[in-house]
Amino acid sequence: MDPELSARRGEWLAIAESLKPALLETRHAPVSIVSVERDDAAFQGWSVRRPDSADSLASRVLGGNEGVTLDFGAYLVGHLTLRAENVERPPGAPLRLRFVFAERPAELGESFDDYRGWLSRAWLQEEIHVVDALPATVRPPRRYAFRYVRIEVADHALPYKVRLSDVECTATSCIDTDDIPPLSPDVPGDLTEIDRVGCITMAACMQTVVEDGTKRDRRMWLGDMRLCALANYATARRFDPIRHCLYLFCGLTDDEGLNSACLYEHPHPVRGEDEIVDYSVQLAPTLLEYAEASGDFATARDLCHVAFRQIEIAFADCDSRGVFTNPKGKWVFVDWNPDVLHTEAAINGMIVACARAAARLAMLCGEPDAAARMTTIADTMADGSRGRFLDETTGVVVSGPDRQVSYASVAWLTIGGVLTAAESRRAFLELFGIGDAIRPVTPSLTHHVVQALFDCGLKDEAWATVRSFWGGMVERGADAFWEVFDADDPMRSPYGSPLMNSYCHAWSAGVVHFIRRAYPPD
Amino acid sequence: MDPELSARRGEWLAIAESLKPALLETRHAPVSIVSVERDDAAFQGWSVRRPDSADSLASRVLGGNEGVTLDFGAYLVGHLTLRAENVERPPGAPLRLRFVFAERPAELGESFDDYRGWLSRAWLQEEIHVVDALPATVRPPRRYAFRYVRIEVADHALPYKVRLSDVECTATSCIDTDDIPPLSPDVPGDLTEIDRVGCITMAACMQTVVEDGTKRDRRMWLGDMRLCALANYATARRFDPIRHCLYLFCGLTDDEGLNSACLYEHPHPVRGEDEIVDYSVQLAPTLLEYAEASGDFATARDLCHVAFRQIEIAFADCDSRGVFTNPKGKWVFVDWNPDVLHTEAAINGMIVACARAAARLAMLCGEPDAAARMTTIADTMADGSRGRFLDETTGVVVSGPDRQVSYASVAWLTIGGVLTAAESRRAFLELFGIGDAIRPVTPSLTHHVVQALFDCGLKDEAWATVRSFWGGMVERGADAFWEVFDADDPMRSPYGSPLMNSYCHAWSAGVVHFIRRAYPPD
Repeated sequence: MDPELSARRGEWLAIAESLKPALLETRHAPVSIVSVERDDAAFQGWSVRRPDSADSLASRVLGGNEGVTLDFGAYLVGHLTLRAENVERPPGAPLRLRFVFAERPAELGESFDDYRGWLSRAWLQEEIHVVDALPATVRPPRRYAFRYVRIEVADHALPYKVRLSDVECTATSCIDTDDIPPLSPDVPGDLTEIDRVGCITMAACMQTVVEDGTKRDRRMWLGDMRLCALANYATARRFDPIRHCLYLFCGLTDDEGLNSACLYEHPHPVRGEDEIVDYSVQLAPTLLEYAEASGDFATARDLCHVAFRQIEIAFADCDSRGVFTNPKGKWVFVDWNPDVLHTEAAINGMIVACARAAARLAMLCGEPDAAARMTTIADTMADGSRGRFLDETTGVVVSGPDRQVSYASVAWLTIGGVLTAAESRRAFLELFGIGDAIRPVTPSLTHHVVQALFDCGLKDEAWATVRSFWGGMVERGADAFWEVFDADDPMRSPYGSPLMNSYCHAWSAGVVHFIRRAYPPD
Repeated sequence: MDPELSARRGEWLAIAESLKPALLETRHAPVSIVSVERDDAAFQGWSVRRPDSADSLASRVLGGNEGVTLDFGAYLVGHLTLRAENVERPPGAPLRLRFVFAERPAELGESFDDYRGWLSRAWLQEEIHVVDALPATVRPPRRYAFRYVRIEVADHALPYKVRLSDVECTATSCIDTDDIPPLSPDVPGDLTEIDRVGCITMAACMQTVVEDGTKRDRRMWLGDMRLCALANYATARRFDPIRHCLYLFCGLTDDEGLNSACLYEHPHPVRGEDEIVDYSVQLAPTLLEYAEASGDFATARDLCHVAFRQIEIAFADCDSRGVFTNPKGKWVFVDWNPDVLHTEAAINGMIVACARAAARLAMLCGEPDAAARMTTIADTMADGSRGRFLDETTGVVVSGPDRQVSYASVAWLTIGGVLTAAESRRAFLELFGIGDAIRPVTPSLTHHVVQALFDCGLKDEAWATVRSFWGGMVERGADAFWEVFDADDPMRSPYGSPLMNSYCHAWSAGVVHFIRRAYPPD
C-alpha cells in the first residue's frame, strides 16, 4: 500500500470516532397480549392470535412456568424494561425469568434448544434473568431486535405470584424518523407500504454504525451499508453517520491496501477476517454515491485512493483477456446461494461497474490520472467479459462450464455497461423465458437486478420485481425487510435454520431509493 | 400492641438503616482446575479430582460446548469477574457462557434441569450470560456463594475459540477475619478445624444482615441470626452489625406486637410472612446475649419490651395447666423434621427458657415489674411442662400421644430448667439407650442439645456431639457448615433435593461459641 495512505489510517479512525452519531431514543409500549400458534397455512408455520389488549397485563398474575407474550405492534431495536412485583405472598425466592425476543412468530413457536444450525446459538435472543429482590425494575442486559417478547417464569416452584407492568422498550436509532419526508401521494398503495417497511428497516439498522442485521450479526458489512445508505440519502439524508462508516472502513484498510469487507465496532473498531471481492470493489460506488448525495467532496478526496486501490487489486487477478478469474480463490459473494450460483460473469460485471464508478469519483475529486487508470481497467475488463459471457448469437448471458444462466450475471453485466441497453433487454427477456434460470434469494442481489432493469429501460419489469420480492415479504407480514426471501421456500436459510435469519437487514432497505427516485416529492 | 411501641417502629428502622454495616472486600483467585466425577464412595456421590493448577487456564482455549471447572480452594461469597477473549478468529458472534456456582461438588455433577424440589429453582446458582463484544470483562450479575465455578461455552457453534483469564472473586463480609483472635494452642486439632470452618461460616453469613444461608435463602431469620451472633461475640466481637439486625427485627414488629420470624432486606426491609413461635420467643435471649456480650444496655432497654411481648403472646396460648398447646396452629419449628418430630415438649421448654432470659433481661434493664411477670410465666409453664412431659418413674421425657422420645424434648426442658440437672442427666442417659429416639438433623437443634449437655454437666457427651456432628461435616469435606446434616443420609433435604440445601448456614456457626468458651484465650 502507498505508505502515505497507510500512515493515514490512524487519522481516519480518529475522524470516524469524532463522527460517531448520537442515538435517539423513543419509548414504546406493547399493544397487545398474543398467543403464537402452530398454523400450517401461515408463513413458517406459526401465526399470531391477539386474545387481549396490553392493558390487561396489569390484571394478570403469573405463577410457576407461566408466561405471557407481548406484541409491540412494530419492529423495534432497543432495551426492554419492566416492573415485576410479587403478589399474594412475600417474595420468598428470587424470580427466574426467561425472555425470548422475536422478530418473527416462528422464533416464539420453535424451541431454541432444538437449534442445530451452524451459526452461534448466542444470536437467538433468549435471556435467563434472575432477579434477587422484588419489587424490582427489570432490565434484560442486552439490546434486542424484536416485535414480540415472551416473558416466562422459568421456575416450576415459584412461591408467590408475579405481576408484570410498565413494560417498555427504549428503542434507538441515529435516524429521527420525523426527518423522513412524506411520500408523494402519487405513489401506489402497495409501493407506499413497501416504502414504509423499507424506512423502518433503514432506521433500525442505522445505529452507531449501519449494522447489517439488528438481530444478527450487528457487524458492519460494506455492501449492506451501501444499500442502506441509498435509502438514507433518499429520505432522512443524515450524511454524517455514513461518513462515520466510510472513515471506519478506510481506517481499517490492511497493509496491502485491501478494504475490510466487514468490521467490528465494539469494544473498539477491528477489521473482520472476511475478505469479499464484492465488498472491496464496491467501496468506489459507495464513496461516489455518498459524495453525490451529500455534496461532501472533501471526504471523497480524502478517501478516494483507498477505493481506487480496490479496483487495482481486483484487476491484478485478471487474466490476459481482462477477465477476473479469481486465481487466489477469494470469497466472491454475489448472492446467498453459493452451492448453486456460478458467480464469474456477475463478479466481472460488478468490477467493471465499480471501476466506472471509481473513474467518475476520480474526475469529481480532481484526479484525472486515476480516472484514466480506472477507465482503462473498466474498458479492458468489459471487453474481456463481453467475449466470455455473452453468447452473441442467442443473446443469452452465460457463466461457467455449464453455461449457467442467472439473474446475477445479466444484472451485473448490465450495471457495468458490458452490454448495450438493447443487449441487456434481450438478455433479460431471454432469461424470463428460461425456467431454471437462477433467481436471486437476497434483497441485495434483487436490488441490483432492479437497478439493472431500470438501467436498460425495463421499467415495468423493475417494478414487477419490487412488487413480487419486497411486496412478497409485506404479504407475509414483514415488519422490516429480511436478509433472505424465497417465495417458494419459507424455511430457506443460509445457516441451517430460519430462526437464525435476520429479519431486519440493511441490504434490503435500498428499495426505498427506487421508490423515492421514481416519485420525487413536490 | 402498646401504642407507644408501635409508634417507635419507624424510628427503629431508621436506627437500623444508620447501622447498616459496610462490607469489606477481599479478592480471591482460583487455585486449581478440577473435574467433578461420579464416585459412589464420595459424599453425595460426587468427588473432585484436581488435574491442573489454575495457572494453566491461560494456556487453555475453549471451543463450542467446552468448559472448565475452577476451584477457589475455600468458601466464598461474592461477585465473579473474568476476562474473555477470542482467539484464532475474530469474535464473529456473541459469547454465550453458562456459569454454575457450587457450594458442593454435587451441584456440578447433577443437572439443574432435572431439579424437581419444592423450593424455587432460582436458588440454584446458574447463569446464562451472553457477552456481545470481545475481548470483554465479564461479570455475572448476581452475588454467588461457592467454592467451585463451572464456566461453559453454551453454544455448539462458537465460530472462534475463547481464552478465559483473570478469574477473580471479590468476596464480601462485614467481618474482618483479621479481627478473629487466634485459638488457644490448647484446643485439640479436630476442634481447631471445626472452629476454623465455623468462623468461615460466621463471616460468610454476616453480610449487611446475618443471612441464614448465603446461597439460599439470604433472608434473615431470628434463630439463625442468634446462633451466628454467638459465634461473632466469641471471635470478632463486631456488635454494630448485630445491633443493626436487632433494630430491623423490632422495627418490623406487627400491629399485635409479634416479632417477625424472618425479614427481607431488599429492596427495603419488609417483614416476612412466616410466624414461628420459636423465633418469636427467642428474641429475649438474643437481646440478652447481645447486651451481655457488648455491654450495650441502652439498646437492650430500647427494645426489651418487644421481647417481653413475645413471651406474653406465647403464654396467652397456654392451657390452664400452663402448657403451650398451640391452639391457633402456629408454626412450631424446633428442627427440620416436621413429619417425624413431636415438638410439644421442646417448644414448652423453649418458651420457659426464653421467659427466664426475658426476666434476666428485664432486671438488667431496670424493669422489675416486667421481670416479675416473666418469672411468673416461666415458673407457671415449667410446672405445667414438668407434669406433662417428665415420666418421673422412668426419668424419660416424652411428648405427644405416642410418648415420643427425642433429643429435642430433653434439650429444651433442660435449657429451660424444667428439669433439675440430675433429672436432665438421667433423661439424656436414658435417651442414649433408646435406639429410635428422634435425633436432631439441623445444626440448630444440635447446638441446643450441646448447650443442654453442658448445662446439666454432661461435658464429655457435649464434646462428643460436637465431634460427631460438626466433625462429621468436616470429615465429609465441609468448607462451611451446613443447614442440614444427617450422617446416615447424605441426600437428606427438607426441600426434595440436596442441591437446594444451604451449605453455609448461619445457625451452624454457633459451635464456635462452645469451643471459644471452653478454651478462653490467654
